[in-house]
Amino acid sequence: MKKIYFAGSIRGGRADAGLYARMIDFMKEKGHAVLTEHVGHPELNLLEQGRNKDGAIYAQDTAWLRESELLIGECTNPSLGVGYELSYAERFGKPCYLFYNQTKTQLSAMLTGDPYFHIYPYQTENQLFSMLEELIAGFE
Amino acid sequence: MKKIYFAGSIRGGRADAGLYARMIDFMKEKGHAVLTEHVGHPELNLLEQGRNKDGAIYAQDTAWLRESELLIGECTNPSLGVGYELSYAERFGKPCYLFYNQTKTQLSAMLTGDPYFHIYPYQTENQLFSMLEELIAGFE
Repeated sequence: MKKIYFAGSIRGGRADAGLYARMIDFMKEKGHAVLTEHVGHPELNLLEQGRNKDGAIYAQDTAWLRESELLIGECTNPSLGVGYELSYAERFGKPCYLFYNQTKTQLSAMLTGDPYFHIYPYQTENQLFSMLEELIAGFE
Repeated sequence: MKKIYFAGSIRGGRADAGLYARMIDFMKEKGHAVLTEHVGHPELNLLEQGRNKDGAIYAQDTAWLRESELLIGECTNPSLGVGYELSYAERFGKPCYLFYNQTKTQLSAMLTGDPYFHIYPYQTENQLFSMLEELIAGFE
C-alpha cells in the first residue's frame, strides 16, 4: 500500500474531473491510499477563498505532498496548481508519474524537458488505464 | 537594472501572448533586462520537441531562473510550466510578483495560499500597468 498524491486541475478547469475520479477509484481499488481524493469530486468549490482560507488549502496540500510516497498526475488540462505541485514534489524527492492525452495537448517543456519526471503519453483512456495498472503493479 | 524572469503560458495557451509582449516591452523600456523575452513572441513554436530538445529548453529556462533577480508572472491563463517555474523560483529564493485578471479566472490556491508570493489581481489592463509601473519604480 502506497500513499499517493494525485494531482489534477481544479481552478485551471474541470474538463477532466470525471477521469480524475476514475483514476482515483482505480488506485483505491488496487489497495492504495489517495491523499487528495477530493480532486475527483464533481462538486468541488472552484472559487478563490481569500488568501487566509486558500492558505489552509495550501498548507494541507503541501503537507500531503511531503507525507506522500509518490505523485501521480493527470496533466492534460493546463494548471498552475499542478505545475507548482510537480516542482514541489521534485524538491522533496517524491517520484512523479505524469499522464497526459497527447491527442489533446502539448505538454510543457518544463515537464517533458525535466529528466526527473516519468512521463506517460496516451491516446485513449484504455491505454491510460493499462499503463496505470502496470505502474501500480510495480509498487507492490 | 534588474534581471527579470518573465513567466507566461506557452503550450498551456497563447490567449494572452500580446499582453505578455506589452509587459515585457514595458519592463525593457524602464531599463530592465527580461531574460525570457521570447515568451511574448507571437510566432513561438508551441509543439513538443521530444524529451531531448525539450530538455535543452528546460535547462535554459531553469538556468535563467537561477540567474534572475526576481520573477514577474502573468498568471491569468492556466499553465503547467508557469506553475512549475513559480515553485522553482520560490525554492531558489527569487521574489515572485504575480499578476492575473480576476474577471477572467480564479487563481490556484497553491499560489493565493502560498504566503511567499506577492499577488496583484487586476480588472483592466490599465490597472495592471499602473501596478507594474509602481512595482518597477520600487526596484530602482
